[in-house]
Amino acid sequence: MNQNHATEILLVEDNPNDMELTIRALKKNNIANDIHTVTDGAEALDYFFAKGNYSDRDILQNPKLVILDLKLPKVDGLEILRQIKQDERTKTIPVVVLTSSKEESDVVASYKLGANSFIVKPVDFEKFITTVKELGMYWLLYNEPPK
Amino acid sequence: MNQNHATEILLVEDNPNDMELTIRALKKNNIANDIHTVTDGAEALDYFFAKGNYSDRDILQNPKLVILDLKLPKVDGLEILRQIKQDERTKTIPVVVLTSSKEESDVVASYKLGANSFIVKPVDFEKFITTVKELGMYWLLYNEPPK
Repeated sequence: MNQNHATEILLVEDNPNDMELTIRALKKNNIANDIHTVTDGAEALDYFFAKGNYSDRDILQNPKLVILDLKLPKVDGLEILRQIKQDERTKTIPVVVLTSSKEESDVVASYKLGANSFIVKPVDFEKFITTVKELGMYWLLYNEPPK
Repeated sequence: MNQNHATEILLVEDNPNDMELTIRALKKNNIANDIHTVTDGAEALDYFFAKGNYSDRDILQNPKLVILDLKLPKVDGLEILRQIKQDERTKTIPVVVLTSSKEESDVVASYKLGANSFIVKPVDFEKFITTVKELGMYWLLYNEPPK
């Protein structure tokens, strides 16, 4: 799998409905064009560390933004955060947790592990779209990612 | 100085013009009402660690957002980041660097020290207002801060 072109957003999400809604919101107003998706935590780690199916990926070509669900098959989001935020090659990548969890323990654990931001998925359809659109605008149009 | 009421935003900025513009943008649409300002790095550290003039402040009552300039009198923004992001009591506070620096070394150093986001101050007046308004909206209306 060749991933040497610049991916703008890596979206780590196992729920097909949330995945579809998130992509739809990010594509609104052409905020993001190049979104790469992975559906479990093991594949996410392969992506970050250029292993397995991603062994051809240039590990220094990082996305401008990672949108990370917490409850994921194989490896959960907090463990992914722990691994990428303690590795010099990946620690500066902006990671926004996007989850249905409102648990204070998840919020605090995410920030302690180095999450850049924590967004709760709105249950309401319209609010979901607006929130993800705002998220995409902020991180792609205003935030300065490391090169 | 009694600071036990909930401050929404701590703004660390030594330039009076940038300070005024930033506050004006944050007050638009009533995004933020309770903004506390400090104008040098030593006062910022006193605020975070409830020392000096801030010895009455409840150190566990953290702002929802810190907007931090990098070039500051007495103690610079990177040193402030280093100190608050390695202390368990303050490391989860969202910190957005807002600076005129576009130096890649400042971007990378900020993220490595734990900055949550890095925004370059636009030179253009209208863009400055729009950018700070967007910043305030994202962090106060969408982001979930730790309690």
